[in-house]
Amino acid sequence: MKRIRLIISYDGTNYVGWQVQKNGLAIEQVINEHLSKLLNEDITIIGASRTDSGVHALGNVAVFDTETKIPPEKICFALNQGLPDDIRIIRSEEVSLDFHPRYGAHSKTYEYAILNSRVSLPLTRLYADYVYYYLDTDKMRRAAKYLLGEHDFTAFSSAGGQQKSMVRNIYSIDITEETDILPKAQAPLHKDDFSPKMVRIRITGNGFLYNMVRIIAGTLEKVGMGIYPPEHVKEILESKDRRKSAPKAPARGLTLREIDYGNLE
Amino acid sequence: MKRIRLIISYDGTNYVGWQVQKNGLAIEQVINEHLSKLLNEDITIIGASRTDSGVHALGNVAVFDTETKIPPEKICFALNQGLPDDIRIIRSEEVSLDFHPRYGAHSKTYEYAILNSRVSLPLTRLYADYVYYYLDTDKMRRAAKYLLGEHDFTAFSSAGGQQKSMVRNIYSIDITEETDILPKAQAPLHKDDFSPKMVRIRITGNGFLYNMVRIIAGTLEKVGMGIYPPEHVKEILESKDRRKSAPKAPARGLTLREIDYGNLE
Repeated sequence: MKRIRLIISYDGTNYVGWQVQKNGLAIEQVINEHLSKLLNEDITIIGASRTDSGVHALGNVAVFDTETKIPPEKICFALNQGLPDDIRIIRSEEVSLDFHPRYGAHSKTYEYAILNSRVSLPLTRLYADYVYYYLDTDKMRRAAKYLLGEHDFTAFSSAGGQQKSMVRNIYSIDITEETDILPKAQAPLHKDDFSPKMVRIRITGNGFLYNMVRIIAGTLEKVGMGIYPPEHVKEILESKDRRKSAPKAPARGLTLREIDYGNLE
Repeated sequence: MKRIRLIISYDGTNYVGWQVQKNGLAIEQVINEHLSKLLNEDITIIGASRTDSGVHALGNVAVFDTETKIPPEKICFALNQGLPDDIRIIRSEEVSLDFHPRYGAHSKTYEYAILNSRVSLPLTRLYADYVYYYLDTDKMRRAAKYLLGEHDFTAFSSAGGQQKSMVRNIYSIDITEETDILPKAQAPLHKDDFSPKMVRIRITGNGFLYNMVRIIAGTLEKVGMGIYPPEHVKEILESKDRRKSAPKAPARGLTLREIDYGNLE
């Protein structure tokens, strides 16, 4: 028997999320079915991150045990033949039998994308939130600094998580903006106009509570719009009160980029 | 009466193209219906570029005449309220009554995107072609140079276009590559591996024949894969023979970025 690790990329738009639900199709379910058929065994994968409905992944991680003689690195290519094109296994490899995707030290990197424009754009609508009011990314960066390091993130999580401790360590939050997304002559006209931009919040930590990245993104959007001063994020954090933070930003803006099991700080 | 110019952005995935067809929904049809309802007039827009089924636009252009008293710059915002989210009017403004989107001097810029990777990626699948074999972009750039300037592009067009002259002037072809599209640890494993990259061919000219950009993209892909030497593109061009060029690359990789009616070279 050997244990195989899969790196999985998906567009979450048409799924109820990673985990099997009663109201629709789940990503793990699609992979289990195709893998069981391919290997002629009853396979149940164990995922690292049970992403919510509508959330995307560039590289989620899952493992399963198998007796197959297909070389581990080739399983991804064989599996991709049958999978729908919104799910792809980008890498498969053998790992030791004691590797578990959710235990042991690892870091996760998420990216939250926000189109900041007077008009939403069809070509980014599936993978980015959309904010009509001007976002001041300098203010967002100042606010984000209060979240760095080890904190109790109760104020930035939804009820329903299964974790015991609410303490997590955020290693980095990088906020970038890309401004040349529309040719200049085509920018929307508006009385107090600004250049449309794509804002990306990239956040790495040793783990995240339920809805934590989306609540952080929703809170930083309010800071960017000038509704909260940057210092207010410190107060929210210290309050440990879920009612103080902003509503979670929509699922479509969130992509799980990477789970790293080596090179930890 | 006044003439209004619209800048229109759309995701072409779910449409039969710009122009009304019998086999499905066309983009101009959706806009005509919503505009007629909004303005309470019978509106028929005239589009600058009749993009094919599946082709996207960041900024196509269309005009219509109206008696409405809604301020021209506000028509886009009112219209967007009712449009499906894969079509957006990003700008509306009054133009002179003799402005026609297809006549007079203008330049068009298209971008053709190609994911070059051992595995296709769900998050770019709708907006980029996918090539499994390594693409040498230096070779593609050398080949593209033969296409610059004024030529008879018969060899790079499909039958079915309505134009009289096959001569067009290509002002620029820029080929860029973005290599950090996947975290390093997640690149697909393969015996002769290369880093996944996104290749973008951006091409500006005074006009394009039917399928011209997609045939150029398909031909440059063959050059990048090493099937054609760069110099072969010169021979294809000079042959004026449609059978010499490569098949057209798929519609999903193509986006009409911009139509520029000023600042011409």
